Amino acid sequence: MLRKTLSSWTRPSQLCRQMSVVAKSLKYTQHGEPQDVLKLVEDKLADPQDKQVLVKILAAPINPADINTIQGKYPVKPKFPAIAGNEFVGEVVCVGKEVKDLQPGEHVVPLATGLGTWATHAVYNEDQLLAISNKVGLAEAATITVNPCTAYRMLKDFVQLSPGDTVIQNGANSAVGQAVHQLCRAWGINSVGIVRNRPEIGELKQLLECLGATAVLTEEELRTSDIFKSGQLKRPKLAFNCVGGKSATEVSRHLDNGGVVVTYGGMSREPVTVATGPLIFKDIAFRGFWMTRWSKEHYNTPERKQMFQDLCQLMVQGKFIAPTHEMVPLDQFKNATAASLNFKGFTGKKFILNMSC
Amino acid sequence: MLRKTLSSWTRPSQLCRQMSVVAKSLKYTQHGEPQDVLKLVEDKLADPQDKQVLVKILAAPINPADINTIQGKYPVKPKFPAIAGNEFVGEVVCVGKEVKDLQPGEHVVPLATGLGTWATHAVYNEDQLLAISNKVGLAEAATITVNPCTAYRMLKDFVQLSPGDTVIQNGANSAVGQAVHQLCRAWGINSVGIVRNRPEIGELKQLLECLGATAVLTEEELRTSDIFKSGQLKRPKLAFNCVGGKSATEVSRHLDNGGVVVTYGGMSREPVTVATGPLIFKDIAFRGFWMTRWSKEHYNTPERKQMFQDLCQLMVQGKFIAPTHEMVPLDQFKNATAASLNFKGFTGKKFILNMSC
Repeated sequence: MLRKTLSSWTRPSQLCRQMSVVAKSLKYTQHGEPQDVLKLVEDKLADPQDKQVLVKILAAPINPADINTIQGKYPVKPKFPAIAGNEFVGEVVCVGKEVKDLQPGEHVVPLATGLGTWATHAVYNEDQLLAISNKVGLAEAATITVNPCTAYRMLKDFVQLSPGDTVIQNGANSAVGQAVHQLCRAWGINSVGIVRNRPEIGELKQLLECLGATAVLTEEELRTSDIFKSGQLKRPKLAFNCVGGKSATEVSRHLDNGGVVVTYGGMSREPVTVATGPLIFKDIAFRGFWMTRWSKEHYNTPERKQMFQDLCQLMVQGKFIAPTHEMVPLDQFKNATAASLNFKGFTGKKFILNMSC
Repeated sequence: MLRKTLSSWTRPSQLCRQMSVVAKSLKYTQHGEPQDVLKLVEDKLADPQDKQVLVKILAAPINPADINTIQGKYPVKPKFPAIAGNEFVGEVVCVGKEVKDLQPGEHVVPLATGLGTWATHAVYNEDQLLAISNKVGLAEAATITVNPCTAYRMLKDFVQLSPGDTVIQNGANSAVGQAVHQLCRAWGINSVGIVRNRPEIGELKQLLECLGATAVLTEEELRTSDIFKSGQLKRPKLAFNCVGGKSATEVSRHLDNGGVVVTYGGMSREPVTVATGPLIFKDIAFRGFWMTRWSKEHYNTPERKQMFQDLCQLMVQGKFIAPTHEMVPLDQFKNATAASLNFKGFTGKKFILNMSC
């Protein structure tokens, strides 16, 4: 960082000039498969002006929605040329002269969506960023704004839950699913996870129970389980669905009267089938949740700040860890995006681009 | 009515003794098809005691739920022997000595559900009855507690509607559908009705438009209609579904962001199919409504009183008429229940048992 004289700066530690940073970023100019349309390009970044902040990206995950956005299959459409990616954790390098609350060295995550984050460096506006403690792990910080927030809001905003209540979810090993288990454990709520059967089902159950799942059942086991009928667990007030089709019908079948099924994904690509009887006579409601809309509608609200504060606290305490993931260097993006697609982004591990490699 | 001496009664006009009323009623002792299990029997009724009220039933409708209850297919199970029927309008004949607010000659409708109403006379408790103006027509009064209340609550309780907003419904010629059109007209709300195509479609459209429908479309016409896209009507905030299957999917497709589909019936016997995209990205919610539950949960509440007051006022003003119906004598119950079944209770006319014949 070059500085002319100290006297020319009012707040020297926050400002910078002539950084001559060359950023590598994954750009695309048309929709298509990521491995076909993403190009790793280098651009010299201008120094941050006014309320701008130069950020060194440390890590940025590959989320299913990122892939869908590149494919043109997501309701959020970028302006071309666009940098891919939506989440990251970065370190503030230097700031424009009107930046008030961010300091070089601080870690930041995005408050805004669709910033374009698959890059080594980027210039954002201060109001697009949220400072978070450097004590939060890189993988946790890089993935905080989408999956943990989705789990947090779905647990908070649809029914009133008290300790001892039960939540049921399919796709229970998804990144959101793992977050749900951990938040339920932290809040004293029973968390029943439903997963598809697979050769390594024993290890998967162990992993999810270790994260806080009260019980993990395969779809077949759920059909014959008496875990609720026997009174072992209260009937769930809330179900989370990221699968659709029969799996959604099955989890909704176990709900208590007045229960709510919240759909946040559709891995099976089959619609949710809703029998008329439970809608009318059990007052079951079917809702949806989209984190992007919530974030836009609650951009600078106290509940959003509270949410990040709660999540960061759990992360610092080691009570909330990032979803199963693999860090990969930026230049391995083709394999990583292709592998994310194979996994449909919902099972297996999440790939996180690690910009420091 | 025999009275010993005036001095022995504190409120002579409200009391009676030795009525020796013989009531004819339709009873059943096991579930089955109405024409097989209903028997027209005669019973001598004891004089009303304490808080009891002797009511001469004037008219009682045959609702789909009454048929389903007799068949054993409804969640409300009667104790045998049971008198069939759930709604009526009657005239108070005489009252027990602790009855406070009802007078002989007053018209009453049921506040409680499942009272057993397909009878010429019955003894109920005062707190099971609501007095309504004798100016309300017999057919309107006999059918006030289920269909108009369902329409009223569905319009009031799911989204905030303002004059100029739009509601869409399938099965728009059902008894609830007809009530929705009339309430929408009274409240300045646009009401779009969807019906199945049929030979007499022109007459049906005319009838529903006469009741207040802003537009009536067949399911086929809805698929290609630009009534919302063109801006002619605002996109609906609310959809009512009593059909299920593709019809439910189609009405939900036109909803505005944040819209709610309320299911109150399932005429097609097909489940509601809910695409994942609209749930998540348009925040469409799928709910259910059951009048019986609402009535139990709001038995003696101000909102329930307000609702009956509003409906009665519209009925007295001639702004709300009973659904298309045919009055039939009690002893023709076999034909009437069978015909209600053929119509599935949702299309064509409602049969009302007329006890004065």
